[in-house]
Amino acid sequence: MTDKVNELVSKCLQARDMAYCPYSRFPVGAAILTADGAIITGCNVENASYGLTVCAERTAVQRAVVEGHRQFTAIAVACDIKDQFVGPCGACRQVLMEFGSDWIVYLTKPDGSYKETSLSELLPLAFSPAHLAKT
Amino acid sequence: MTDKVNELVSKCLQARDMAYCPYSRFPVGAAILTADGAIITGCNVENASYGLTVCAERTAVQRAVVEGHRQFTAIAVACDIKDQFVGPCGACRQVLMEFGSDWIVYLTKPDGSYKETSLSELLPLAFSPAHLAKT
Amino acid sequence: MTDKVNELVSKCLQARDMAYCPYSRFPVGAAILTADGAIITGCNVENASYGLTVCAERTAVQRAVVEGHRQFTAIAVACDIKDQFVGPCGACRQVLMEFGSDWIVYLTKPDGSYKETSLSELLPLAFSPAHLAKT
Amino acid sequence: MTDKVNELVSKCLQARDMAYCPYSRFPVGAAILTADGAIITGCNVENASYGLTVCAERTAVQRAVVEGHRQFTAIAVACDIKDQFVGPCGACRQVLMEFGSDWIVYLTKPDGSYKETSLSELLPLAFSPAHLAKT
Ligand SMILES: [Zn+2]
Ligand SMILES: [Zn+2]
Ligand SMILES: [Zn+2]
Ligand SMILES: [Zn+2]
Repeated sequence: MTDKVNELVSKCLQARDMAYCPYSRFPVGAAILTADGAIITGCNVENASYGLTVCAERTAVQRAVVEGHRQFTAIAVACDIKDQFVGPCGACRQVLMEFGSDWIVYLTKPDGSYKETSLSELLPLAFSPAHLAKT
Repeated sequence: MTDKVNELVSKCLQARDMAYCPYSRFPVGAAILTADGAIITGCNVENASYGLTVCAERTAVQRAVVEGHRQFTAIAVACDIKDQFVGPCGACRQVLMEFGSDWIVYLTKPDGSYKETSLSELLPLAFSPAHLAKT
Repeated sequence: MTDKVNELVSKCLQARDMAYCPYSRFPVGAAILTADGAIITGCNVENASYGLTVCAERTAVQRAVVEGHRQFTAIAVACDIKDQFVGPCGACRQVLMEFGSDWIVYLTKPDGSYKETSLSELLPLAFSPAHLAKT
Repeated sequence: MTDKVNELVSKCLQARDMAYCPYSRFPVGAAILTADGAIITGCNVENASYGLTVCAERTAVQRAVVEGHRQFTAIAVACDIKDQFVGPCGACRQVLMEFGSDWIVYLTKPDGSYKETSLSELLPLAFSPAHLAKT
């Protein structure tokens, strides 16, 4: 798995360069590993109406879906923050949860070092698709 | 504090009745306790373009802001799920984080029983406003 | 009607002062006129995860709903742009459409001058709740 | 241009089949024509927290950006509605506007017939990136 993780981390760092972020000037890159071993990248795409901005992680998920993937095992995320590991925003955590709770999440620094965590850790007591059917 | 918590829980249950949710038929209510003791409620407000839907928790936060509040201590949330305690969606967790990490969160069942948790528990390794200034 | 319009315009300008907009520094205010003559205000509420930002118009609509209103006749919107009349963002136009197409829209400048338009003009060929039932 | 339009329309219809829409059961497909002649598709990707849903048009734009495109000339959009031509939701109109006002928009029916309109027609008096610099 180590080679695949290195590739995932490397691709999320590259994807950061594609970010369209004229408002925040805060580029973010993401790379998703699908269940069948494909890697799909995403970057943040901002909007003058700030609320229509979408993060890198969600761009990657949407792109994966339109390319035919719905089963995922891991995601790597990187921004420009050098001195600590930062998790995805809550909205992105929820979008990952839509496709299952078994995601490994690699929080990546610009130098390529990373911290491994998981969606279960990042979104405890999660609201999930199953809950909509509960009522 | 107990009386105030009971009032908060009671008001989040009432707010659920105001939900506009013709698409999900999943009404949710929220009630926020401000630092100066006011209670502000919210409900989900859905949209035919599903992505423009906003949850109860966020409605309450936005309403609190326009009414002049920016310091909060707790939120109670209730939906119709009877058999378990469900946390807010990730998007709402992030919106709470915008106003600090010190929120107590009361997950409430329709019968008024509740589980106390906190934003720190619900959104570990959080992305927060401070990070935007880091680069 | 003129007095009511003046009040609506005046209140949307005041609501702008409540805006929480540390990222854009672009405060916006909105004021909605309900079918029974109440005025409900809103301001933009931004988020470090830009995509969780909500505009003034939508804050006003959500607040109106939780306060029990679902029938509306007009909205006034104001930002700090002095030299032209600017319409609401597309997301807000769609949220207005959720509650009918008969909105009068008053685009307001900081000096209180305004241009009257309508949601029908601002969102032609609109996607609306009725379309979801069409398939 | 006719061949390219036919291809665009055909691809937006195909993209509709990739939609992840378990909540609305309202699949939508979109196909964007870039300034250099590439076609990028998108579909809607829904979420149990309805507000995190993203439309087909926006999925296509985000995917185009991460693939290196920022200049566009046209978009085709199709859903399952057979008896009329329906425009994109307001949120999507605003996301198109982020990349200029010169979009041709092809509203497409399931049988492949289409109506040509434009973003200028669909989003009059638009809020645009230039406005953020105005204050
Ligand atoms: Zn995010
Ligand atoms: Zn939520
Ligand atoms: Zn708006
Ligand atoms: Zn849309």
